[in-house]
Amino acid sequence: MTVSHRARNAETFHALDFAQRAADLEAQGHHVVKLSIGEPDFGAPPAVLAAGRDALDGRPLPYTPPLGLPELRSALSDFYRDRHGVQVPAERIAITMGASAALLLATAATTDPGDEVILADPSYPCNRELVQSFGGTVVALPTTAATRYQLDADMVERAWGDRTTSVMIASPSNPTGTSIPFDELAAICELARSRGGWRIVDEIYLELSDASPAHTVLEVDPDAIVTGSFSKYFGMTGWRLGWAVLPPQLVGPVERLAMNYFLSASNPTQQAALACFTPETLEVCERRRRELGARRRLVLEGLARIGLPVPVVPDGAFYVYIDVSGTGLGAWQFCEQALDVAHVALTPGRDFGPTTGETHVRLSYAASRGELNEGLSRLGHFLASRRG
Amino acid sequence: MTVSHRARNAETFHALDFAQRAADLEAQGHHVVKLSIGEPDFGAPPAVLAAGRDALDGRPLPYTPPLGLPELRSALSDFYRDRHGVQVPAERIAITMGASAALLLATAATTDPGDEVILADPSYPCNRELVQSFGGTVVALPTTAATRYQLDADMVERAWGDRTTSVMIASPSNPTGTSIPFDELAAICELARSRGGWRIVDEIYLELSDASPAHTVLEVDPDAIVTGSFSKYFGMTGWRLGWAVLPPQLVGPVERLAMNYFLSASNPTQQAALACFTPETLEVCERRRRELGARRRLVLEGLARIGLPVPVVPDGAFYVYIDVSGTGLGAWQFCEQALDVAHVALTPGRDFGPTTGETHVRLSYAASRGELNEGLSRLGHFLASRRG
Repeated sequence: MTVSHRARNAETFHALDFAQRAADLEAQGHHVVKLSIGEPDFGAPPAVLAAGRDALDGRPLPYTPPLGLPELRSALSDFYRDRHGVQVPAERIAITMGASAALLLATAATTDPGDEVILADPSYPCNRELVQSFGGTVVALPTTAATRYQLDADMVERAWGDRTTSVMIASPSNPTGTSIPFDELAAICELARSRGGWRIVDEIYLELSDASPAHTVLEVDPDAIVTGSFSKYFGMTGWRLGWAVLPPQLVGPVERLAMNYFLSASNPTQQAALACFTPETLEVCERRRRELGARRRLVLEGLARIGLPVPVVPDGAFYVYIDVSGTGLGAWQFCEQALDVAHVALTPGRDFGPTTGETHVRLSYAASRGELNEGLSRLGHFLASRRG
Repeated sequence: MTVSHRARNAETFHALDFAQRAADLEAQGHHVVKLSIGEPDFGAPPAVLAAGRDALDGRPLPYTPPLGLPELRSALSDFYRDRHGVQVPAERIAITMGASAALLLATAATTDPGDEVILADPSYPCNRELVQSFGGTVVALPTTAATRYQLDADMVERAWGDRTTSVMIASPSNPTGTSIPFDELAAICELARSRGGWRIVDEIYLELSDASPAHTVLEVDPDAIVTGSFSKYFGMTGWRLGWAVLPPQLVGPVERLAMNYFLSASNPTQQAALACFTPETLEVCERRRRELGARRRLVLEGLARIGLPVPVVPDGAFYVYIDVSGTGLGAWQFCEQALDVAHVALTPGRDFGPTTGETHVRLSYAASRGELNEGLSRLGHFLASRRG
């Protein structure tokens, strides 16, 4: 019996490993400040919880259609229209088990063995595994603070080759919380389109941008593949529900893959998610977005105070990407010691690519201000004790 | 922009298409007897619904570990011990978003491009798509009523080649409801093991066997990959929760793939599923199993009365696989006319492979006795009108 190459070569997602190590420490009675995982501490808004409970009242809960409950697809279509002013027919929206499954389906539907997919280093690690799992070759372009750790059109143009079929973008980005300037995003998409390439744009943090409403790529590239999620803005990480906006020619292919791979997303969770789009729930979510902005300021001030530089100030999501190279520790070591000594869980840059892998760590500020202050204080003492 | 070969070649799952056509007819005001989809009409047991509602009380619902909640993995381990007398450490159980995701992960972890995977024709269509999606070649062996439409060890031995890496089995089977005799199953697994091949055994209908407790392959092949589900026996189809039992050398690789592909299965659904393993819930499920047995007798008698032969009497699941070749209609035509004329939704054999694709249709008897009687009556009239 031989384990497949893709499984043998798959990288662990260290963010989850560090979270597990944090949980193990807590099980031993320690209080760990957990800033490693990209999960808001808010949870789902009250109306979503209530709708979820209502869905479990004994009514039938069969498989939904493979692309989701029609009423949820419609609600998302209305949301794109009302918030972003773009027309996205419900028929082009696929409801999926998290943005994870949306990215899996998008990759599976667009990547043949040998195809090259351009993406940024650093970026969300699972994208690389998905591309490779379906036989594609990842072309990870090193980025720097000069472009906010994002691709720009010049880079993409230089890297575009005969076998390139897609560019994958996330804006705002995980791990950096930085967005691509909108005209630059438009230029990248225009370039990829002109070369006959897919644009896979992950907008799961879009509604957690400083700009509100933020600009979706669909304003300038209606045929981009866009992934979204109920996890972040709506606080439903553990529920596993997301979506993809598909260009017309991908709807049928993705539907066929979705029915074979998954049958459908969860029926009760989809029913609960219908409560996301009321004015009341959106007001709850907007309050949370503003709270995350306040937490970011708190974290940036605190990190400056203890001497940990953040080379690029984020403009969305809930991450800061810290350069720890001045501490004399590699990023991995830094995360290990921060956890073991200071009981603060962070994520090493290695998850996100080699360019910043040994110099940067990701801090998720989706924790309460109290926890953030405690975490900053512990990191401060940890650094002081190293210097002292 | 080019759609990937896998997506272009993916077959639609006709069962879902016919279900959709049935739903469309119902939206027009018709009462359709829906016997096309493999979904019990029972729904989740009351204690599971209650636990699901409790999970939505505002408590944090973060991602779970990639292989699932430890307490749910333990509960399944206990279930295997108590019901089946096999020791399956919780560490070897992966909780997944339906058995669909379990099959996807099992295939991804064991199949390299060019690998050959042996399976039965007819069998569950999604397995073929999964193997092909990860670059494998499907070797579908035609079966007949003589082997209950299942593989036997002789067939597998003859088909085993240099590139064969796995055999995929489902027992009881979808679409036939037939199990492999246990000594034959053991012989197939022993053969595959001796050739260094994986045994992927789908047991999602195991607890809906006539024998109770039925024999899990783990009794004779503890290193088989076994997939299971909360969908069928526990009536949780639309919730999307299942599991895989993994041999030790696959636990790490599957965990890495699972975190990259899915992060985790749904947290609230896993909490709800903890209520599956109480004596009360199991008693509810056993009553349902007996009810399905009664429905099968009703359906077999009814089909005999109206002259539709079932070549092999099932011993589990909730399907009968009907030979319609005596009606003068191809199976596809039969399903179309049964739906359009008699308003009875069935699934054409084409879903399950070419051997029986044009001669057989699948009837799911997981509907109420009233609906089954009505469906049989309508089919009887439909056939009589064709003869008359």
